[in-house]
Amino acid sequence: MENSSNLKVFSLDTSSPRVVACYFDSEKKIMIELETKAKHGIQVSQVVEKLKEVDFNSLDVIGVGIGPGGLTGLRVGISFALGLGIGKRFVRISSLKLIAMNALASNGYIGVVRKAREGYLYAGLYHAENGKLHTLVEPFIESIDVVRERFKSYNQLLLLGDGAEYFKDYGIVFEQPTYSQYNFPSVRNLYLLTIEEIANGNFVDALHIEPLYLQKSIAELNFEKKLKQIQEK
Amino acid sequence: MENSSNLKVFSLDTSSPRVVACYFDSEKKIMIELETKAKHGIQVSQVVEKLKEVDFNSLDVIGVGIGPGGLTGLRVGISFALGLGIGKRFVRISSLKLIAMNALASNGYIGVVRKAREGYLYAGLYHAENGKLHTLVEPFIESIDVVRERFKSYNQLLLLGDGAEYFKDYGIVFEQPTYSQYNFPSVRNLYLLTIEEIANGNFVDALHIEPLYLQKSIAELNFEKKLKQIQEK
Repeated sequence: MENSSNLKVFSLDTSSPRVVACYFDSEKKIMIELETKAKHGIQVSQVVEKLKEVDFNSLDVIGVGIGPGGLTGLRVGISFALGLGIGKRFVRISSLKLIAMNALASNGYIGVVRKAREGYLYAGLYHAENGKLHTLVEPFIESIDVVRERFKSYNQLLLLGDGAEYFKDYGIVFEQPTYSQYNFPSVRNLYLLTIEEIANGNFVDALHIEPLYLQKSIAELNFEKKLKQIQEK
Repeated sequence: MENSSNLKVFSLDTSSPRVVACYFDSEKKIMIELETKAKHGIQVSQVVEKLKEVDFNSLDVIGVGIGPGGLTGLRVGISFALGLGIGKRFVRISSLKLIAMNALASNGYIGVVRKAREGYLYAGLYHAENGKLHTLVEPFIESIDVVRERFKSYNQLLLLGDGAEYFKDYGIVFEQPTYSQYNFPSVRNLYLLTIEEIANGNFVDALHIEPLYLQKSIAELNFEKKLKQIQEK
């Protein structure tokens, strides 16, 4: 188990309008969250500006949020990370698990649901107990109805993510608008997940960093449509 | 109920080794957490450096963590806030409630315990339910034994803060060392509490900003000691 305390680590998630980034080494921890009306590319530069004490050439490990989430944002973040880290070690951060971590202190089921294309959600299912988070269902994409049906049997399910509104009838959904904060990744949890991935030795090289692209292909969608038409006859 | 979305707000908590600070207005949110080996005064300057897009002269409201916590750090943060805000409106943030917010997603009792002087704890008791946090017992200072006794009757009590270790035998305490992150204030929750105080109109002027100083006086302590001696006879 690698101890991250001697490493110089930078980690970044750009899967949402809130860019979160942290740097840490044995001397310091710097955590930044930034939400502006600027595009992700600009926001990443703004974050870097705030990290002028960081020597980006001497990083040991780079963490990067791979989604699922907004694909343009993810591409910007991942490209930036790759630019920093040719030949270096990477850890991949699940952007849904990152949001689930917002409810680490809860005891129970956590469904993370983020809006994908119209009528669809990225979804993942987690369970928290005494400060430990377990992944029950890895991120998938499905129509709102299918996700609703799939999550229905989980008692006292807490919903996080910008798709939580679709679950108000049976799930626990935090009060809006202020607590919509809990629907975004937080930098502290990015830090915690990055440490966890390093401790577990889950390193990959630059070739293995790409957005978690869960969209069904058009072919799959057409097939499903046909199947439905047949079933309805 | 004042809507903070049209205001320019800066908020800061220096009650722990982790300085947390945020700025927000209708266009942007910037959140920073900084933990270095530097003294609080230097850390505050380092935070300000990272906020160069902020016009500190045009702030509408200033939030400041008033503790309880490390008194030197608090004095530095409060002095800085006062310097920024002569004649402006302030909101006071309880540094214990700030830590309790780390478990907003839990359903149940949250005890926040921070080490005060040797053998004593600052303590506060909160209850979270469906994303709402209620204060049950306002911050107080007592010996570890007295706090332990006072909190004992709360079922499934989650303990946060650097004094949590004293409650391992009957409380829920997050795994160390990584999740000791939950014992520190987080900038996201500073942002949320600042918004809440503004929405509730809890404004004070600069004259009413001072650290929450809960220490018992030496006279009180001597009196208690004598009382105990008498009772033991």
